[in-house]
Amino acid sequence: MKKPSALITGITGFAGSYLAEELLTHGYTVSGTVYNNEPTNNIKNIIKDLQLVALDILKPEKCRRVVNKIKPDYIFHLAAIASVSQSFKMERLTFNINFDGTLNMLEAARELPGLKKFIFIGSAECYGIFSPPEKTLTENQPFNPISPYGVSKAAAEQVTRYYARHHQLPVGIARPFNHSGPRQNEHFVIPAFARQVALIEVGRQGPVMKVGDLSPQRDLSDVRDIVCGYRLIGEKGRPGEVYHLSTGKAVSIKTVLDTLLKLAHKTIKVTTDKSRLRPNDIPVLRGNNKKAVQQLGFKIRYSLQDTLQDTLNYWRNQVQ
Amino acid sequence: MKKPSALITGITGFAGSYLAEELLTHGYTVSGTVYNNEPTNNIKNIIKDLQLVALDILKPEKCRRVVNKIKPDYIFHLAAIASVSQSFKMERLTFNINFDGTLNMLEAARELPGLKKFIFIGSAECYGIFSPPEKTLTENQPFNPISPYGVSKAAAEQVTRYYARHHQLPVGIARPFNHSGPRQNEHFVIPAFARQVALIEVGRQGPVMKVGDLSPQRDLSDVRDIVCGYRLIGEKGRPGEVYHLSTGKAVSIKTVLDTLLKLAHKTIKVTTDKSRLRPNDIPVLRGNNKKAVQQLGFKIRYSLQDTLQDTLNYWRNQVQ
Repeated sequence: MKKPSALITGITGFAGSYLAEELLTHGYTVSGTVYNNEPTNNIKNIIKDLQLVALDILKPEKCRRVVNKIKPDYIFHLAAIASVSQSFKMERLTFNINFDGTLNMLEAARELPGLKKFIFIGSAECYGIFSPPEKTLTENQPFNPISPYGVSKAAAEQVTRYYARHHQLPVGIARPFNHSGPRQNEHFVIPAFARQVALIEVGRQGPVMKVGDLSPQRDLSDVRDIVCGYRLIGEKGRPGEVYHLSTGKAVSIKTVLDTLLKLAHKTIKVTTDKSRLRPNDIPVLRGNNKKAVQQLGFKIRYSLQDTLQDTLNYWRNQVQ
Repeated sequence: MKKPSALITGITGFAGSYLAEELLTHGYTVSGTVYNNEPTNNIKNIIKDLQLVALDILKPEKCRRVVNKIKPDYIFHLAAIASVSQSFKMERLTFNINFDGTLNMLEAARELPGLKKFIFIGSAECYGIFSPPEKTLTENQPFNPISPYGVSKAAAEQVTRYYARHHQLPVGIARPFNHSGPRQNEHFVIPAFARQVALIEVGRQGPVMKVGDLSPQRDLSDVRDIVCGYRLIGEKGRPGEVYHLSTGKAVSIKTVLDTLLKLAHKTIKVTTDKSRLRPNDIPVLRGNNKKAVQQLGFKIRYSLQDTLQDTLNYWRNQVQ
């Protein structure tokens, strides 16, 4: 039987690299798009098993040519400005990459006969502000985004659903909640903390950690569970449907910090860094994951403790 | 006292031209942007009272320069691909003009000290599909757009609200339901019908009218009431708030057709033209207008009969 084939945009990124591993492990032929000369260290262990092609996702004609050359069974569209905090600093680029980039890939996918699924990666950040703020969200929760990232992903998801409905494109929509793990960059809170712990352990930073607001609560998964969800949406997701990928529980950033401090080999003090305070943050994000569990067999295999330990070990290696 | 000043993007368009008249009547100094050599016949009677500047809304630097040169008290951002049916035929242009164009104007407005209000024109089309389909919508109804126009306006409104919240831009958001009147082009249903009646009356079309789906119900206002609402949102709207501009009632397209047929000077037969059937249409759009009535003093002054009579007379002049 012919192996299934997948094209991953953003393959060199955090989730992209784990998705590539997940798909290789499950017998896929994996291709991926690389922007300019972006670093490929996230995929260095699997690079010999991958077909890589250069692509600027903002060029519609190039997107079309790449898709038409590779003719994948599945397109996993992960290329994005993925950091909420960075999106405030590069609003326009966030809208361009996340919205126009998605539109370009949808257009390219539409012209590919035999495509089995276009998997779009949405985000729980699209929910923004809602009431009551502590409620557990289902996939029906309306969007009310408050960050450029959230606005861009909301628009991109809406245009993806339009392509499903109007152009009969077989799409699957993942709506992941926060996820972390090794390889995530330090614009995200868990690697920002883990990196500082590692720097303090080797004496490259004084024994004081700089943190932002510790009160937000987030539904934190391991990236390895999330990319398994992406594969399952490709294989089993009902066309046009949206799936939460989450744990169903929310923990505060303070809990994350305390857990990391316990894993640290040195005693560490904590101080607030105002530059790390994000404007108008969402107090709680917690996602009901029953639909993915029941329809796809989605499972949480990694505990928060596992994720934090692995992420800290990753940064211990990085800072050496 | 110094006259208030307003800049209207899309001033040569249907609603733009009426808004210019509304503002002139109420003592404003009115400027407007014109794209390339687009026709100015909609504003021919007031053109001597207007300051017109050339602008391609897709050029961020040009938007900035125009806003900074005119330094208006109010910016009414109307420039858009405004036809739902046309948006299916020019998806990308719709996203570009309606989203990127709004972003460019927001960016330009943000740098203008003393701006009193940036009035963004959203759309009831953003609501898309909802349940039950016959319900009367309030401003809290979530967006679930099904047309490129709806997706583009939803994204543009979300980014406008982001500018209000994050950049403290004083914005007012109009969310008009369908509106018509003289000068609207024939991509919209009422002028499409009225034009055919006029053509048939003078013998330039056989006695058969071509129509699309007559079952959708729409909340139909007169453009002259809607642009009065835009002015009121500028003057009295609470910053960051959204206001429905609507009648609170919905009538079927069949009722519109029957009323026009009664106004016609000839007996006219009706036939369905499949090319006029719009994909996945919204069955009913009806908007609760209490917020605008109570907070702004918004009023419906024109009946549907008035609007249809005036529109038919306009087309009788046009086809001569």
